[in-house]
Amino acid sequence: MSHISEPTVRRLSNYYRVLEEVAAEGKRMISSHLLAEREGITSAQVRKDLSSFGSFGRRGLGYHVEHLRDEIRALLGLDRRWKACLVGAGHIGSALVGYRGFSEQGFDITAVFDADASRVGRTLEGLVVRHVSQLSAKDGFEIGVIATPVRAAQEVADLLVTAGVQGILNFAPRKLRVPAHVTLRTVDMTMEFESLSYALTHAKAAAPRRKRTPARGRE
Amino acid sequence: MSHISEPTVRRLSNYYRVLEEVAAEGKRMISSHLLAEREGITSAQVRKDLSSFGSFGRRGLGYHVEHLRDEIRALLGLDRRWKACLVGAGHIGSALVGYRGFSEQGFDITAVFDADASRVGRTLEGLVVRHVSQLSAKDGFEIGVIATPVRAAQEVADLLVTAGVQGILNFAPRKLRVPAHVTLRTVDMTMEFESLSYALTHAKAAAPRRKRTPARGRE
Repeated sequence: MSHISEPTVRRLSNYYRVLEEVAAEGKRMISSHLLAEREGITSAQVRKDLSSFGSFGRRGLGYHVEHLRDEIRALLGLDRRWKACLVGAGHIGSALVGYRGFSEQGFDITAVFDADASRVGRTLEGLVVRHVSQLSAKDGFEIGVIATPVRAAQEVADLLVTAGVQGILNFAPRKLRVPAHVTLRTVDMTMEFESLSYALTHAKAAAPRRKRTPARGRE
Repeated sequence: MSHISEPTVRRLSNYYRVLEEVAAEGKRMISSHLLAEREGITSAQVRKDLSSFGSFGRRGLGYHVEHLRDEIRALLGLDRRWKACLVGAGHIGSALVGYRGFSEQGFDITAVFDADASRVGRTLEGLVVRHVSQLSAKDGFEIGVIATPVRAAQEVADLLVTAGVQGILNFAPRKLRVPAHVTLRTVDMTMEFESLSYALTHAKAAAPRRKRTPARGRE
């Protein structure tokens, strides 16, 4: 399995979570139909996704839950720990440092930085906030999390790259430029909110029309 | 402008933020080239997106920053306030209640609910946490924010729908089922992390090969 497309990785990520739940419920086997149903896709898509990295499914029996879960976990790189730092100790940054979901997935935030002198020296979940100027390659961070205001985000990304991170998880609502050897992923809450706001605004405006044309798609 | 596709709405959302920044810098006009450059897309795409809701651009002059910003703001429904409640007063939920970005965009979180008795009665940013059983239609919430553990998310979504919300912003890493008249948007931090973890794992594994095939695309 040399290359998996980004949408496939995202589906695998979803299968992984379903498998974790199903394993917690004590089930041994799961069918492609059940995996498909939970994800709202076709079972053919599930079989295609899963066949591409080995034939775990058995006709009429389905997939072995723990085996498949462990295979996907290893594929996604969730069977190891990542050394991460976080920059931006505001509301969102503070929440992320304490967010159990990150550590459960192998994400160890071992340092917190901020540019605001009034936050430097404070303690967050046992970590003393350091000034961002102290960010350096000798700490060996593999991943940097950006939780700064939007205006500081690019500068912080540049600092993280200089400090040698291989990946950046960005929570600032801005497109960032990073060199090709650094992987960037963005969690854009603002965009999801704006997309929701757009849909609600236009669903309302379209409501009278909707009654006359019930067969058409979403707004 | 009867229908805009979801990817277009997301690009408009990005243009809006660029325009806000450029307006703050005091610039009056912006070219499609500059908008395109900031977004990493073609200027033809920018002109196409913007032409679809009126011709604001003038050849050789570009777009009037404040005018275009205000048009996009109105289109996205950001020129009004939304009455929202939040369910789940853990790390992420608490951060969201205090997150300035939400209120700046018209998102007023006016109530916080939790199922955990030990959290009920606590105060978060001036709001007393109420038990989730008190969620009802008479509060008139338009939007519900879900920041619960994954196992509770579907049940909470059902409660929010019963309470009459029109939209749900979900932070739990799970696909939720909602009726067609309710708009759902999900901010999936877990998936972004897993996608990053996958990319870093396989970038490392592929590193020796990369030297021999510098011309190929991303991992």
